[in-house]
Amino acid sequence: MSAPSTPEPVVAIVVAAGSGSRLGASVPKALVEVGGVPLLLRSLARLAAGGAQHAVVVVPPDAADAFAAVLERAPLPVTTVAGGAERQDSVAAGLAALQQMLGEQEVVVLIHDAARAFVPAEVVARVADAVRAGADAVIPTVPVTDSVREVDDDDGSHVIDRARLRSVQTPQGFLRSVIEAAHAELAETGTPVTDDAAAAEYLGHTITLVEGDRRAFKVTEPLDLVLAEALASEEG
Amino acid sequence: MSAPSTPEPVVAIVVAAGSGSRLGASVPKALVEVGGVPLLLRSLARLAAGGAQHAVVVVPPDAADAFAAVLERAPLPVTTVAGGAERQDSVAAGLAALQQMLGEQEVVVLIHDAARAFVPAEVVARVADAVRAGADAVIPTVPVTDSVREVDDDDGSHVIDRARLRSVQTPQGFLRSVIEAAHAELAETGTPVTDDAAAAEYLGHTITLVEGDRRAFKVTEPLDLVLAEALASEEG
Repeated sequence: MSAPSTPEPVVAIVVAAGSGSRLGASVPKALVEVGGVPLLLRSLARLAAGGAQHAVVVVPPDAADAFAAVLERAPLPVTTVAGGAERQDSVAAGLAALQQMLGEQEVVVLIHDAARAFVPAEVVARVADAVRAGADAVIPTVPVTDSVREVDDDDGSHVIDRARLRSVQTPQGFLRSVIEAAHAELAETGTPVTDDAAAAEYLGHTITLVEGDRRAFKVTEPLDLVLAEALASEEG
Repeated sequence: MSAPSTPEPVVAIVVAAGSGSRLGASVPKALVEVGGVPLLLRSLARLAAGGAQHAVVVVPPDAADAFAAVLERAPLPVTTVAGGAERQDSVAAGLAALQQMLGEQEVVVLIHDAARAFVPAEVVARVADAVRAGADAVIPTVPVTDSVREVDDDDGSHVIDRARLRSVQTPQGFLRSVIEAAHAELAETGTPVTDDAAAAEYLGHTITLVEGDRRAFKVTEPLDLVLAEALASEEG
């Protein structure tokens, strides 16, 4: 294989710094077990099945030991790094770890929420493929099923045309050079962003939407655990 | 009890005209069974538990017999009426049936999607109570959990501040006089609306938002049935 035709390796940054308190759990959310398997390991298995060759897992600084024990069972090679105060800081920590590992090598970076533990492997592959095909920033989305209203400053609200709305999921995919530059710029200017596509967008990159999947839902509330347990038991 | 202090009766209009095709079902969606009980009967039980005293069920015209058989097991008195081509037509048919039943008597009308079969009774009661307390139009909403993007005319998209967004559920509640006037006006002008609050809003009424519940999700896709079955089996 000549260098130009070799596809870039795919590396996942998995953000696992969330607390389990909304789920009523005493452990970090990513370690909550569904069907006997922690959400984090489920996410890693999906990412590996979708083509990720290595994962950087960003963990809560005070729970490193618990994560290390769980990650002994990881289905792909994993590097662990301590997260920051905000999600954005955690992603930046993950990117810094990549730089230590890889130097300047270009890779496809998939940034994923550990709590989206049932993301289908096809969605992971679709995001990575779109980056390899030349997209700067790729996000999987699904249509919005409920009517949506936007609350106004005066406490009123107005309906938004639901047909134009898309729910954003993860993994979000980028060339490493793109997302690294975006995070560096945000850190310098102190601009907060709520997701990584928004970071790339801030630098003027176009966001490419690909088809997500309802199964890539984020486990957030107890009701999500009910669905997660049902999916886990369907899978056997 | 003197007339002014008697609370208005609560009547539900349950829209059950949807097809089951997206669920892979050969029967109308409202007749799809979860834990052995049709979604429609589950919805009616929740509405009754939340205070509805009577229900008008709007059914697909070609499935009247199948609905009649199921509705023999309804947990509250039910009137059945054939639906129209659009949801708006179905609601109008339900309102016309109410007028035949009640003449000009004022009641609280709760308009509900049969497919939101796990709406908690507390949400139903909250909506009805807000109407009785003087609100023109009441909708239950929940926060939006994913980032949301709006697709632009030029195929681009932009992020919307998720903190300002609310997902709209049912039942939506109105004084009958308000929602009847709104639907009459819409019919006259031929204005299409996607939900009943939007109909009332069209006439200049203020929409009051009350707290909904994630369990009031609409069963739409096969994944929703997985959650529905899990909830049904939790309830025993």
